Amino acid sequence: VTGDSERELRATLLRVSEPASPGLVAHVRTHGVAQTLEDIRCGAPIAGAEVEALRHRLESACGARDLDAAAAVGARLVIPGDDEWPLQLDDLGWGLADCLGLWALGRRSVLEMTERSIAIVGTRVATDYGLAVAADLAEGLAEAGWTVVSGLAFGIDGAAHRAALAAGGPTVGVLACGVDIPYPQGHRSLYRRIADEGLVLSEHPPGAAPQRPRFLVRNRIIAALSLGTVVVEMAARSGAKSTAVHAGRVNRHVMCVPGPITSPTSAGCHQFLREHPEAALVTRVAEVIELCGHMGELAEPVRGPASVRDRLGPAVARVLEAVPVRRHATVERIARTALVAPKVVEAALAALEAAGLVASSGDGWAMTTAARRDRAARRAPVGEELPFDDW
Amino acid sequence: VTGDSERELRATLLRVSEPASPGLVAHVRTHGVAQTLEDIRCGAPIAGAEVEALRHRLESACGARDLDAAAAVGARLVIPGDDEWPLQLDDLGWGLADCLGLWALGRRSVLEMTERSIAIVGTRVATDYGLAVAADLAEGLAEAGWTVVSGLAFGIDGAAHRAALAAGGPTVGVLACGVDIPYPQGHRSLYRRIADEGLVLSEHPPGAAPQRPRFLVRNRIIAALSLGTVVVEMAARSGAKSTAVHAGRVNRHVMCVPGPITSPTSAGCHQFLREHPEAALVTRVAEVIELCGHMGELAEPVRGPASVRDRLGPAVARVLEAVPVRRHATVERIARTALVAPKVVEAALAALEAAGLVASSGDGWAMTTAARRDRAARRAPVGEELPFDDW
Repeated sequence: VTGDSERELRATLLRVSEPASPGLVAHVRTHGVAQTLEDIRCGAPIAGAEVEALRHRLESACGARDLDAAAAVGARLVIPGDDEWPLQLDDLGWGLADCLGLWALGRRSVLEMTERSIAIVGTRVATDYGLAVAADLAEGLAEAGWTVVSGLAFGIDGAAHRAALAAGGPTVGVLACGVDIPYPQGHRSLYRRIADEGLVLSEHPPGAAPQRPRFLVRNRIIAALSLGTVVVEMAARSGAKSTAVHAGRVNRHVMCVPGPITSPTSAGCHQFLREHPEAALVTRVAEVIELCGHMGELAEPVRGPASVRDRLGPAVARVLEAVPVRRHATVERIARTALVAPKVVEAALAALEAAGLVASSGDGWAMTTAARRDRAARRAPVGEELPFDDW
Repeated sequence: VTGDSERELRATLLRVSEPASPGLVAHVRTHGVAQTLEDIRCGAPIAGAEVEALRHRLESACGARDLDAAAAVGARLVIPGDDEWPLQLDDLGWGLADCLGLWALGRRSVLEMTERSIAIVGTRVATDYGLAVAADLAEGLAEAGWTVVSGLAFGIDGAAHRAALAAGGPTVGVLACGVDIPYPQGHRSLYRRIADEGLVLSEHPPGAAPQRPRFLVRNRIIAALSLGTVVVEMAARSGAKSTAVHAGRVNRHVMCVPGPITSPTSAGCHQFLREHPEAALVTRVAEVIELCGHMGELAEPVRGPASVRDRLGPAVARVLEAVPVRRHATVERIARTALVAPKVVEAALAALEAAGLVASSGDGWAMTTAARRDRAARRAPVGEELPFDDW
């Protein structure tokens, strides 16, 4: 080990230890990588770590060999201090375990690819609804210049990666196994495309298998790499929840997409929104960008169709309401119906006439065809679709 | 007017003035009903009111006649001070206009019927999803002994009333016209059933027509009568929003049901939840009752199916993970794979053996059929459905 470069040392350590082992990570923080490896070799006690098991692994570990193996498949190890090191991962120290290094497959800079990125995650057993929503969000984010980060899993992850690629946008897949292992096998060609056009990342050394606990450990990388995490669909118990929780711990935006309350794969999203007031309900790309983007990237509020009536003041609206649809009425009659003084009625009728909504004849006032059409064009019957503060 | 009872005076005033007219309501609060009527008769100025129009109406108004007309159809006027006066309406003074009296059709006490009530409201142009959700909530609330309050409109309102009636529960319809007018006409038989088994209420005198502004004024009564308002579906612009806003103003619980983000009739609910952090996302009757009911009526959290693995501690789970599914492995091999000390592995294997998850042979340890079945029974592949804090 002595004489090895920092990169070789970290490659060795990533081979010897599971990522996010709290005791070991704390020891590295205090004593550095070289000393930690030395302590493992000597069997020196490391609080919270099983030194004997680590020592056994260290005997057969060789960082230089892993770096060579990675290079053989076009991968590299990115470590703190590198130009392309994603500095946002340093936030993991705020409550999660530090990342000691990231194996990367793909040509582009990890930092540049992830500086402006959003994670889109969710259940593997997604519904058509969830798949469509994930694809729409990923496409919209890609078109707006954002990188989509996900976990290359079946379901939501895959839909997000694919839509980002289809939109010509960058996408980053973070694996719970070595970056040389296309996992799951069914996503082999997707993995290939992400490696070609984006980045495949992992804390695990080449050849490492996707063991169950590694998925949760991996999820903290997805959460910390991105400015925010969007959960599209998750069941009441789901691995995606860990990504959302991790994102919150490192002060990232946490967002959930709602869905039918009758859908078990939306139940986890609804429960998370109920239990985490800091999590945002999002329904559109613009809302995600408003939250995670720079100031000024505000989402246009959703608005129903406006009608001429909506622009009337309350008194004028009340007068219009009192004008018969087909018959004619006098000013006095309208005043009585509307409970508005005749003088106000006269002024209102003049304004309504100018707007083309009422017309007068010898018999009094009536609605115009345009006003009737405007009334009919409102999709819902009376009482519906009124601006709520219109009185 | 002089010599009329307070009930007759209020009947007269409800005929003369639109409810929720701010100036008039303030005048009544300061000077009382009799003096207000006298001021209208004399043409004395009332700030914020069109006294001339009110005076004109007063000429033909007669409270006693309205009380008789109501009695003829089995209705009555309920006023503050009555045993059955719904005291919760006095909260309207907190920022909305006082209610001066409620016309009631139905045998039961207004106070008793509404003391423990929830409003279920929403769009008239509801989807099948919204109608089903409204019916489920109303049925569940009725079965739990709650009164369902709504507006007798098409769509969500009708579905809620009908489901409450079908469950044999009480329901209250608040109209924007006289209680003697079945509005909308298409809900004539529903109106009849509510009048027979529950209550039809309105601030408007017998014969009053359902004019547009009256729906918003009516919505404040729905909001204040109930302990909370649930909006099931609403478009971005919807009258139901006014009920939700009113409910918030009088310190009632405001709840919205989420739905597909692709559904325009859920867009208003999502937007309301985004813009009103005090509004609760609800998905089940139990969540509504937890919020609006007495302390201790807590909703059981939604939980996914538990498996044996979920009850294992992290170290034991890691050991189980390292035991081959079909082949056998030695303690040393398992220790190396799991990165756990051999002594810990031995203890974990003993516990796992006791749980029936692993078995030993001369070749070492392997998973049992039960453990393999437990693993397979988990609906999602590896990495999914893990309890998020399992490491």
